[in-house]
Amino acid sequence: VSQLRKCPVSNRWVIIAENRGLRPVEFPAEPKRIDDLPCPLCEGNESHTPGELAAIRKPGTRHDRPGWQVRVVPNKYPALELAGELEPRGDGLYTWLGGVGAHELIVESPRHVVSFSELTADEARHAWEIYRRRMAAARGDDRMAYALVFKNSGASAGATLEHAHSQLIATPVVPGNAREELAGALEYHQQLGACVFCAMIERELADGPLLVEATRRFVAVCPYAARFPCETWILPRRHASHFDTHPEDELGELAGLVQRVVRRVELTLSAPAYNYLVHSAPFDSPPAAHYHWHVEIIPRITKMAGFEWGTGYYINPLPPETAAQRLRQPALAAEP
Amino acid sequence: VSQLRKCPVSNRWVIIAENRGLRPVEFPAEPKRIDDLPCPLCEGNESHTPGELAAIRKPGTRHDRPGWQVRVVPNKYPALELAGELEPRGDGLYTWLGGVGAHELIVESPRHVVSFSELTADEARHAWEIYRRRMAAARGDDRMAYALVFKNSGASAGATLEHAHSQLIATPVVPGNAREELAGALEYHQQLGACVFCAMIERELADGPLLVEATRRFVAVCPYAARFPCETWILPRRHASHFDTHPEDELGELAGLVQRVVRRVELTLSAPAYNYLVHSAPFDSPPAAHYHWHVEIIPRITKMAGFEWGTGYYINPLPPETAAQRLRQPALAAEP
Repeated sequence: VSQLRKCPVSNRWVIIAENRGLRPVEFPAEPKRIDDLPCPLCEGNESHTPGELAAIRKPGTRHDRPGWQVRVVPNKYPALELAGELEPRGDGLYTWLGGVGAHELIVESPRHVVSFSELTADEARHAWEIYRRRMAAARGDDRMAYALVFKNSGASAGATLEHAHSQLIATPVVPGNAREELAGALEYHQQLGACVFCAMIERELADGPLLVEATRRFVAVCPYAARFPCETWILPRRHASHFDTHPEDELGELAGLVQRVVRRVELTLSAPAYNYLVHSAPFDSPPAAHYHWHVEIIPRITKMAGFEWGTGYYINPLPPETAAQRLRQPALAAEP
Repeated sequence: VSQLRKCPVSNRWVIIAENRGLRPVEFPAEPKRIDDLPCPLCEGNESHTPGELAAIRKPGTRHDRPGWQVRVVPNKYPALELAGELEPRGDGLYTWLGGVGAHELIVESPRHVVSFSELTADEARHAWEIYRRRMAAARGDDRMAYALVFKNSGASAGATLEHAHSQLIATPVVPGNAREELAGALEYHQQLGACVFCAMIERELADGPLLVEATRRFVAVCPYAARFPCETWILPRRHASHFDTHPEDELGELAGLVQRVVRRVELTLSAPAYNYLVHSAPFDSPPAAHYHWHVEIIPRITKMAGFEWGTGYYINPLPPETAAQRLRQPALAAEP
């Protein structure tokens, strides 16, 4: 029998329908790798991308030349661009504004590796350091209200390049999904006087069924109303609303935990495509007691169908308690 | 340069990013047909499904035996079921309730055809007649607040069976997406004293750029803030909030228009997977001046990636004006 669960953060409903997990096509294998060779993101092919916005490089190497470890370039096919009109226009029925914003590509290794779990520990740490720096840079642009760092890994997750990379999008308005999450968290705080994310962390660290792994400063849990099989959130144990002000020297620990959770997902679900997203409070918000920045890792093995489009409800055939139990199984070495 | 457009109904934002349409992988071909033979939905295989809930049959033929034209059975892997507790339970942090509801499969032909465009005119009409009857039946169950009729056609659209079929889900609460659309339409009506859907219809019938096709009683348009390439909505020209009270003798005209629009989409986008959805007002709402029932047809050729998950914004590489122009091209015979 299925169960309807309400996400305590966003108030969205999820149907946990375990019996549907029996359907043989529910967990398809990820199709073959993306054919993007010669790869425009590999070291030596710097001229195949727009010019570098930032990089972590070996001493003495030059802009748009080999020698980098992480490299940030503008997206060649941007969804939003820095030029354009910010003012909405409309005719009463229809409203539009220019697609103003930033859209950057963060290349995470000079080598042609694919999954975040295949990076060296140094590469993974550099990636998270540069996510933070690029988000801080976006905050420095007064026109921007919000930025999202996200990764598409694998064709089913929307990736069009195979080489390990993430993206940053900065937008002049706070997107609807972020507003929904902020409103739900504020409501919880007003009613119960606590951060809903801190409440989740506290419960799971006290031997909860949703814990995947904890390190000194971070915790990985399957959310109670998980939308997707093996969906996992990583949160800092100390309350903080903004990712872009997080101390840089703690990001190596976070990067290692992200790598291990991705590895756990890959071992549990036969290397699916996945997305991860960094959720952080809007730029104009002061440090907030009700919101807690976090990373959402989303394996892409179920499909959105007519039911999900029509209702906004997700159907998840794998209860998150079962997912957490399976994800805990692999004995992975912590900090190398 | 891209444009941000706000849907006048739901208030969601869509990025119309034409330059991204250049990406070669953006419009992939739909993979090979689903291998579900022997097909449990074909005439003669009635014993492979749960027992019949309703059917349109040749005179003198028997329940769960051959001789039907449209056949309704419970979904074998239901997301929601009629038994269960309606009362929400929770512990302060987490809230849940039993997965109460109905989940039906509507088989649209005794023959093994795939797309709605391949049905005979009679089969298409019967399908829409039975959608209406099943929705009216769901309204008769006092526990149900809302029902959605939807179709998944093709694996990329979430179909797990190839044989032409649709589904009905009835739910004890009005789903979030429906509430969002109702709230946006109410807001428009309060501000401007008119139905936002009627305003769209009036504008497009007066030589608007988004019109795809009009019949005597229905109109097909690409919505201004289309989320997907060639997304098309079909609306009754006469204002009405509830599909389940629409006169049955007009549904043949609607079914024919749905068939032609699906055919137009198939000719324009090389036969993609698609969903369609019937949006109707909740059961407990009296006939409403602000809401207008309609059908949404969604070709599934773009992928939801990290950006869409993180923000709730959709990126559509094909402006709906261009889509409408292309969809109008094929000279299809109207009413046979």
